[in-house]
Amino acid sequence: MTNKVMLTAAVTGAGDTVEKNPNVPVTPKEIAESAIESAKAGATIAHVHARDPKTGGISHNIEHYREIVDRIRESETDVIINITSGGGGDFIPSLDTPAAGGEGTDIQTPKERHKPVGELLPEMCTLDCGSTNFGNMIYMSPTDWLREQATLVKQSGVKPELECFDTGHLRFANQLVAEGLIADDPMYQFCLGIPWGAEADVETISYMKSRIPENAYFSAFGIGRMQLPMVTQTALLGGNVRVGLEDNIFLKKGVLATNEQLVDQAVKQLHSNNIELMTPQEAREQFNLLQPNGGN
Amino acid sequence: MTNKVMLTAAVTGAGDTVEKNPNVPVTPKEIAESAIESAKAGATIAHVHARDPKTGGISHNIEHYREIVDRIRESETDVIINITSGGGGDFIPSLDTPAAGGEGTDIQTPKERHKPVGELLPEMCTLDCGSTNFGNMIYMSPTDWLREQATLVKQSGVKPELECFDTGHLRFANQLVAEGLIADDPMYQFCLGIPWGAEADVETISYMKSRIPENAYFSAFGIGRMQLPMVTQTALLGGNVRVGLEDNIFLKKGVLATNEQLVDQAVKQLHSNNIELMTPQEAREQFNLLQPNGGN
Amino acid sequence: MTNKVMLTAAVTGAGDTVEKNPNVPVTPKEIAESAIESAKAGATIAHVHARDPKTGGISHNIEHYREIVDRIRESETDVIINITSGGGGDFIPSLDTPAAGGEGTDIQTPKERHKPVGELLPEMCTLDCGSTNFGNMIYMSPTDWLREQATLVKQSGVKPELECFDTGHLRFANQLVAEGLIADDPMYQFCLGIPWGAEADVETISYMKSRIPENAYFSAFGIGRMQLPMVTQTALLGGNVRVGLEDNIFLKKGVLATNEQLVDQAVKQLHSNNIELMTPQEAREQFNLLQPNGGN
Amino acid sequence: MTNKVMLTAAVTGAGDTVEKNPNVPVTPKEIAESAIESAKAGATIAHVHARDPKTGGISHNIEHYREIVDRIRESETDVIINITSGGGGDFIPSLDTPAAGGEGTDIQTPKERHKPVGELLPEMCTLDCGSTNFGNMIYMSPTDWLREQATLVKQSGVKPELECFDTGHLRFANQLVAEGLIADDPMYQFCLGIPWGAEADVETISYMKSRIPENAYFSAFGIGRMQLPMVTQTALLGGNVRVGLEDNIFLKKGVLATNEQLVDQAVKQLHSNNIELMTPQEAREQFNLLQPNGGN
Ligand SMILES: [Zn+2]
Ligand SMILES: [Zn+2]
Ligand SMILES: [Zn+2]
Ligand SMILES: [Zn+2]
Repeated sequence: MTNKVMLTAAVTGAGDTVEKNPNVPVTPKEIAESAIESAKAGATIAHVHARDPKTGGISHNIEHYREIVDRIRESETDVIINITSGGGGDFIPSLDTPAAGGEGTDIQTPKERHKPVGELLPEMCTLDCGSTNFGNMIYMSPTDWLREQATLVKQSGVKPELECFDTGHLRFANQLVAEGLIADDPMYQFCLGIPWGAEADVETISYMKSRIPENAYFSAFGIGRMQLPMVTQTALLGGNVRVGLEDNIFLKKGVLATNEQLVDQAVKQLHSNNIELMTPQEAREQFNLLQPNGGN
Repeated sequence: MTNKVMLTAAVTGAGDTVEKNPNVPVTPKEIAESAIESAKAGATIAHVHARDPKTGGISHNIEHYREIVDRIRESETDVIINITSGGGGDFIPSLDTPAAGGEGTDIQTPKERHKPVGELLPEMCTLDCGSTNFGNMIYMSPTDWLREQATLVKQSGVKPELECFDTGHLRFANQLVAEGLIADDPMYQFCLGIPWGAEADVETISYMKSRIPENAYFSAFGIGRMQLPMVTQTALLGGNVRVGLEDNIFLKKGVLATNEQLVDQAVKQLHSNNIELMTPQEAREQFNLLQPNGGN
Repeated sequence: MTNKVMLTAAVTGAGDTVEKNPNVPVTPKEIAESAIESAKAGATIAHVHARDPKTGGISHNIEHYREIVDRIRESETDVIINITSGGGGDFIPSLDTPAAGGEGTDIQTPKERHKPVGELLPEMCTLDCGSTNFGNMIYMSPTDWLREQATLVKQSGVKPELECFDTGHLRFANQLVAEGLIADDPMYQFCLGIPWGAEADVETISYMKSRIPENAYFSAFGIGRMQLPMVTQTALLGGNVRVGLEDNIFLKKGVLATNEQLVDQAVKQLHSNNIELMTPQEAREQFNLLQPNGGN
Repeated sequence: MTNKVMLTAAVTGAGDTVEKNPNVPVTPKEIAESAIESAKAGATIAHVHARDPKTGGISHNIEHYREIVDRIRESETDVIINITSGGGGDFIPSLDTPAAGGEGTDIQTPKERHKPVGELLPEMCTLDCGSTNFGNMIYMSPTDWLREQATLVKQSGVKPELECFDTGHLRFANQLVAEGLIADDPMYQFCLGIPWGAEADVETISYMKSRIPENAYFSAFGIGRMQLPMVTQTALLGGNVRVGLEDNIFLKKGVLATNEQLVDQAVKQLHSNNIELMTPQEAREQFNLLQPNGGN
């Protein structure tokens, strides 16, 4: 069990966690710094969303993304940048306007979702492979839009991570691969435990892992209290791992975490199981990623 | 392997199958007659949607439902009526109005979706336990709306069949059960092979079956060419089964089916495996269903 | 689901079934005739053991095997002959002579077990890949003896069917393959439900199937009342199938079977599920078997 | 994930490891001391075999067992003693005397196997639930002998741990439970990775765990290089764990281990995953075990 694994720090996300944990980074500067601290603690990859510095909520402002990316690239700490391309996908049910969604509904087109990735050319990006209930809202990612987005990602040379919230998303990710829309060996990310996606447990990883293409790599994570146990379980099953405040805000019951602490703890779990971490440079070489400065 | 199974004939659905197979019943009279013929061929349950007699597309007209139900109830053939409560849930992506859906978008509120069930009091109804991509459209069933609908179904005394297109839907169905919103022993329906829900195969049934409550019953079906093989596999795994033109329009490759033929074939498969079918009256007693005339 | 499957009729075995069902063939003539009748009913392969015509018990007499094989080969019915090489492997525990076994213990060396196969050159033979409790006795097949036997089978050109009573046998079968002791694409036979081997159910087939080499074929059967359900389940999972009085003596509860009836019933189940049977000649070509007259 | 787990140190076994690792304890004094050191390092249970101090091989001498048990009981370190009742079960194949085994064959009767347990009344003992190939030899444990042994164990008040080398052993363990031969809530031990038993991986634990009775507890371990990874995986799946020189002699590749080091490492892995260990006294209370001095 000595394969090296990639550890992603998902440092902030776009959820309503800012008021629940003051360590959730909000400004581009805070997000970049938390990514850098996570890398120093051992993370191979920093997965970032931008937030609106005023509200703490989601931001689609390309300048916010640019500042995050620039700050990370200008630091002396190496880390692979992975930008979300989930973008605006939130549909808030409303009894008054059932077909249009209620206040807070935020649905972007594929081109809009792709913009931060296409302009900033990070080494990696996510691609959410389907729609699903997400708590009381609906995360919307229609299939033809995904085909368009996958094409844009492919043209950009950025490595997509095919996020699967459930087994049907995995089937569609396989379909994207079959249609030639994903370059090179595909990378899957099983996002587990989300209400209401697939469960976060070993049997589910095992089921999903058995259904990806032979040349594919996978990663998996669990949200909330399953985040840390899933790190060990996933790595022992041969997958890459992810922690961070996007998916879980507690270090242990009742103790709010920082990103660095979560990365620290994950590294400790992996090391105690004799599992080594991949460096950003090793990952870059193995997966033939763009160069850190944006592909030149 | 001598347990009796319930066989549902899903006679029409609401998909665009009318032009593909002229045997798909459209008018209330045709739908009722196909349900009756299916029952004569061995179906325990007839699952019905209404269609617009003029367009062949989906109908939300309560009078269409009433005519279907009345005609079945007035016939001399006994069959349990199962009305969809999926209702208007279709969201058609549009690049021009991304948050509102494009032409053909048809999203009803929970009360509207419940109306045919609440007024006509069939013995059973479906309840689709989540949202998902469904081909290029999105089927929308937000969680709070489902809680409201489940409450209405419970108050009506109708037995809901908890439809799960993927494993996250199953988790939410479990949640409805845990919240006390489902009366008596719950019935799950695993709807498999839908693009883009869970796969139609034995491992998936086995995975899902292992995650329902102990007092629960399950049924499963596959769509398209997996419909008939899944009948046998599901029954041999201890589940109830479903066939019909809603999910599959072919009897075999290149041969368009009728509902009766699909029921016939399913019965033949089950009988050849020594599996007997439950009669409507046996099902009514075992599951404590409403009376066929609407619960009086 | 239109792949052709091979159906084996295991016509007699060596168990104590003769007194329980008068249809169990005993003399070489009876065994050959039952094999021929099974082939007429649709069996691709006849799996045979010899019995002592006087006692009905196991026979290691090469002349009994020769008569069975000659009679089948001389008939006008084509069928692939599969001779057991399980031979003498029965160890009957005895408190008086614990290390030597009690009365009825019958342990042959690899060379002795191989003799009927090596002399008569059937197209196929079985190879039991391990030891296990078998009811109250122990079936003994030590690993180094199996390596010797596999080598003899390979030299003979006969196609071995790697019988696995449990998952450890499967691991050792994989080991034989890895050691180069099995020619061509290996064939596994999962022998399920034996007390005390692996369970006869779909999950077990699925587990075992996921652990054979990529170029391998599998077959599976269940004993007793699971024999007939497992035919359908195995074929629907992509495997070849087996029925016959060796493994099950009842057609249905309380009704003693003949081999032909079991084959008939299996064929009926398969046909009702749209699954076709492979002919002996098709199997011969696909698996590059010896010629029916012994390889000349 | 904060359930406490029991950690067993299997300090010596009976295999031919003495020449391979000088840390394998041999004399009763060494074995007792290694058990005590393991307990100090965090082990809840010490699983012991006796060895012949002269040869290092297996000993059936009750006085060797007595000295081990006395020394542990007289120490100031609390640990639950678990004595093997596997006893003499080794059958060494011999081409010259196939039915009797060759040199080194050592088959004891149930009464003989039970003797150290019955006389010394440890709190726990093992019970190997079947026969299997074990490398080139056969481990023999016939079913009726197991029924006799289980009865003796039950009468003694000692808690048996039902060792399953493969899935058929698990089925027979379930049978012992069903026959009422196992007192209270049964404890299973999945012994994985043995050539030629079930594989040491997560899917196998998951498969086996799904097939034990509802009131049962399980533990699992892997041998060789899978020992340490399986500790974490098993505990994360809700099972108890085992390490020790009986099953694995290396701390890491090329580095010979001591029992204390293996326990240390297991504790470190568990703690890093936020899993706490059960003390002997907690285990005694939870499982209603005999008192440490032999039940008085
Ligand atoms: Zn994200
Ligand atoms: Zn429907
Ligand atoms: Zn046989
Ligand atoms: Zn032991």
